Amino acid sequence: MLRQTLYRQLAPEGWQAYGLSPVNKLVCVLILVASFVAILETEDSIRDSLPWAFSGLEVLFVALFSVEYLARLYAAGEDPRYRGWRGRARYMFTWWALVDLIAILPFFLGFITHNTFMIRLLKVCRLLRLSRLGRFSRAWSALAEALNARMYELLLSVGVAGLLLLLSSAFLYAVEAAAQPEEFGSVPRALWWSIATLTTVGYGDVTPITALGKLFAGITAVAGIGLIAMPTGILAAAFSDAFQKKDAPEE
Amino acid sequence: MLRQTLYRQLAPEGWQAYGLSPVNKLVCVLILVASFVAILETEDSIRDSLPWAFSGLEVLFVALFSVEYLARLYAAGEDPRYRGWRGRARYMFTWWALVDLIAILPFFLGFITHNTFMIRLLKVCRLLRLSRLGRFSRAWSALAEALNARMYELLLSVGVAGLLLLLSSAFLYAVEAAAQPEEFGSVPRALWWSIATLTTVGYGDVTPITALGKLFAGITAVAGIGLIAMPTGILAAAFSDAFQKKDAPEE
Amino acid sequence: MLRQTLYRQLAPEGWQAYGLSPVNKLVCVLILVASFVAILETEDSIRDSLPWAFSGLEVLFVALFSVEYLARLYAAGEDPRYRGWRGRARYMFTWWALVDLIAILPFFLGFITHNTFMIRLLKVCRLLRLSRLGRFSRAWSALAEALNARMYELLLSVGVAGLLLLLSSAFLYAVEAAAQPEEFGSVPRALWWSIATLTTVGYGDVTPITALGKLFAGITAVAGIGLIAMPTGILAAAFSDAFQKKDAPEE
Amino acid sequence: MLRQTLYRQLAPEGWQAYGLSPVNKLVCVLILVASFVAILETEDSIRDSLPWAFSGLEVLFVALFSVEYLARLYAAGEDPRYRGWRGRARYMFTWWALVDLIAILPFFLGFITHNTFMIRLLKVCRLLRLSRLGRFSRAWSALAEALNARMYELLLSVGVAGLLLLLSSAFLYAVEAAAQPEEFGSVPRALWWSIATLTTVGYGDVTPITALGKLFAGITAVAGIGLIAMPTGILAAAFSDAFQKKDAPEE
Repeated sequence: MLRQTLYRQLAPEGWQAYGLSPVNKLVCVLILVASFVAILETEDSIRDSLPWAFSGLEVLFVALFSVEYLARLYAAGEDPRYRGWRGRARYMFTWWALVDLIAILPFFLGFITHNTFMIRLLKVCRLLRLSRLGRFSRAWSALAEALNARMYELLLSVGVAGLLLLLSSAFLYAVEAAAQPEEFGSVPRALWWSIATLTTVGYGDVTPITALGKLFAGITAVAGIGLIAMPTGILAAAFSDAFQKKDAPEE
Repeated sequence: MLRQTLYRQLAPEGWQAYGLSPVNKLVCVLILVASFVAILETEDSIRDSLPWAFSGLEVLFVALFSVEYLARLYAAGEDPRYRGWRGRARYMFTWWALVDLIAILPFFLGFITHNTFMIRLLKVCRLLRLSRLGRFSRAWSALAEALNARMYELLLSVGVAGLLLLLSSAFLYAVEAAAQPEEFGSVPRALWWSIATLTTVGYGDVTPITALGKLFAGITAVAGIGLIAMPTGILAAAFSDAFQKKDAPEE
Repeated sequence: MLRQTLYRQLAPEGWQAYGLSPVNKLVCVLILVASFVAILETEDSIRDSLPWAFSGLEVLFVALFSVEYLARLYAAGEDPRYRGWRGRARYMFTWWALVDLIAILPFFLGFITHNTFMIRLLKVCRLLRLSRLGRFSRAWSALAEALNARMYELLLSVGVAGLLLLLSSAFLYAVEAAAQPEEFGSVPRALWWSIATLTTVGYGDVTPITALGKLFAGITAVAGIGLIAMPTGILAAAFSDAFQKKDAPEE
Repeated sequence: MLRQTLYRQLAPEGWQAYGLSPVNKLVCVLILVASFVAILETEDSIRDSLPWAFSGLEVLFVALFSVEYLARLYAAGEDPRYRGWRGRARYMFTWWALVDLIAILPFFLGFITHNTFMIRLLKVCRLLRLSRLGRFSRAWSALAEALNARMYELLLSVGVAGLLLLLSSAFLYAVEAAAQPEEFGSVPRALWWSIATLTTVGYGDVTPITALGKLFAGITAVAGIGLIAMPTGILAAAFSDAFQKKDAPEE
């Protein structure tokens, strides 16, 4: 009886009515709050002013997510596929169960390591909890379908982009390496400039200084417009199709 | 009789003929002139050369807008919904009446405060008068409708953008914090770099310097193209639909 | 008889066959060569190495264009509208005749002035000869028509862009003026930053340094994506319509 | 018999089944590996740690590509067009045979020159091997067709872009040359700034400093949005058409 109630409250497919169950709504809020706290904690000046609060909150969040994880594991038995010990083990390796595990694992891994970089990485991993929100959204299927239908064309434009990236950095390496060995001394080094230019980000920390380098850079920048126009055009066409198919039965 | 004339001249729905009534056209011009003067006044070198002119003009504009506000309040009685004292009070809390109030309020608030920042903010608020022009435009409904019809998909792409923003700043915090504590020392700090990169603005005041940081930055910059392509594609599809529906009855 | 031959060779509507007449093709080549020479001449190091060549070429180009102008004026008599002295005077004030005049006028104006800036401006005006090419292209009507059909929506998005520009520079003036009086000390000064950010150009010569300024700057940068997405979406929809109408009769 | 087997394995049109023949798959992998090695070799710190490995690998790759080239030349005889000595000579001048030659030629040219720049250029030319992959892709026809169908409109927008580029750099030369002779001292010099602004890359290494220069720069930046919107809109419309035609027979 308890298991049935838990299942209805926790499993999105167990909730008959429209929207999310009250418990899942609470979980969503909890994920957002925990992520917000995790972001704030990385700022030393904020954490140092309330050192106990952040440690306490993290313990609280992990405790709540652990309880939620165990409850989900227990409630999974309602589904015939995950009945018994073997079923539960099978459930633990489903996609969303693994994602749920990510919400609590970094905390326990934090006891093992004392390396500053690893601790930072674990803090960042807490933000991956946000991906748990995906479980509750049955909605983005329309966009995902439109993307999927043109996956092939999108991949092709990514391939063209990659080729452009390599060729432009190769040419700038050839003409600029003598003038700026630090920034353009090899193709991998020139890639940093190349990606900033082709995506039209243009930091300006590295720019060609020779006349020939500027010529190739100009061609790269113009090619960058095509690079943006191509996926945009493909997506626009894909969404246009998707919307028309969606609207068609309504009329 | 006066009230009826005022109503016809002031209320956009009171004017039967095409376009705006003469009085409303004058109000539009006044709003534009007042905004232009407000912009010029913020430049010290211009204001100091004509100190009296700017003070005088502002008093004049506020006086005119106040008269207009009172006239609108009086004329609102023509509409059965806003008759009597209670109706007028109700009118004062309608959307456009509140917007109209913004045109005169900053002036009077300016007498209360002497804080430089507050005075600057009040000057800026004068520019909000421009939003009053929205009252006179029945036109942008076509665009607004197209946006509304795809609001859900647009919000979703905003959500994806927000997630990308957080994840990219989190990863750059993890790999760059040691090398540049001032710029990437926390997730909120890294956000500034992240937003400049994902929107392809790319100021270049903050750039990663470690190899790993550049790798993640490159991935972020490429993701930024997708970030631009997605809403553009959705809007293109939405406008395409809207134009086709609009043109259909004409054929 | 001469006048008729000239008319056939010079007036695009006088040439019966497909494409351009031999004389007009020559004129096109001449315009391109003259523009290329004009660009090179601005570079001092190139001009100083061949001082006589550039002066001589310019005299040659102006002589040729003058002859062409007079020939066109003479041949215009073939058209019943431009017959006689009065007709010729009327022809001189048609759009393309005025554009043709721009090709030769800067040369003669160059004798009047000795101001360095004016001489530079006249050199630049030589490039306006390129606009004469428009006379020979009957082709861009398809694109122009698509743009025209959605002119209203495009203007509206320009209006929204202008409003965004003013509001973002106003807010940055309010929060950054104290920290950077030189760059954000007034709304017109802040406009330079604002336009660089909203168009996602992002030079990085001026960036906000206060936390509040960065927050507003981030919002501006995100709004910049919408600013790009909106006209792109409108144009995509307009071209899509235009192409479909063009293809429809063929099927 | 050997020739027939080779033909089936090497010529894409000789392979009956779906996809690529095993030998061609191997060639694809080889091209990717050789390109990756060529990229790494340009980085001195990597090459110096394994000097023999890179020289050896390059010899190996060239040997393999040479064998492949000769095998293709031999197998070409299966095609009636390329039979006999004359046919083989004709084959050697087909597009793809020339592209294949590029894969091996730089190696042999490397023995002739000792100029650092030429050696770098030859290293970069190795990356052109990647273009050989195009031979194996029958797929990008859909995109290429969509591009081709609107080639005229795309070229026109390139022409408009070129005109904008010239005009904006000409105007900035006129107003900024006095203040920044090094960066804006001639139209070709101003082009570097102009291309960075119109493509919205915006490095920020060169920015106008005069008020008039900033005004023109702002107009250029806004025009840059149109420059991006136009090809994007054309491509979106072209892809939309292409996808609809492709989907039509399926329904």
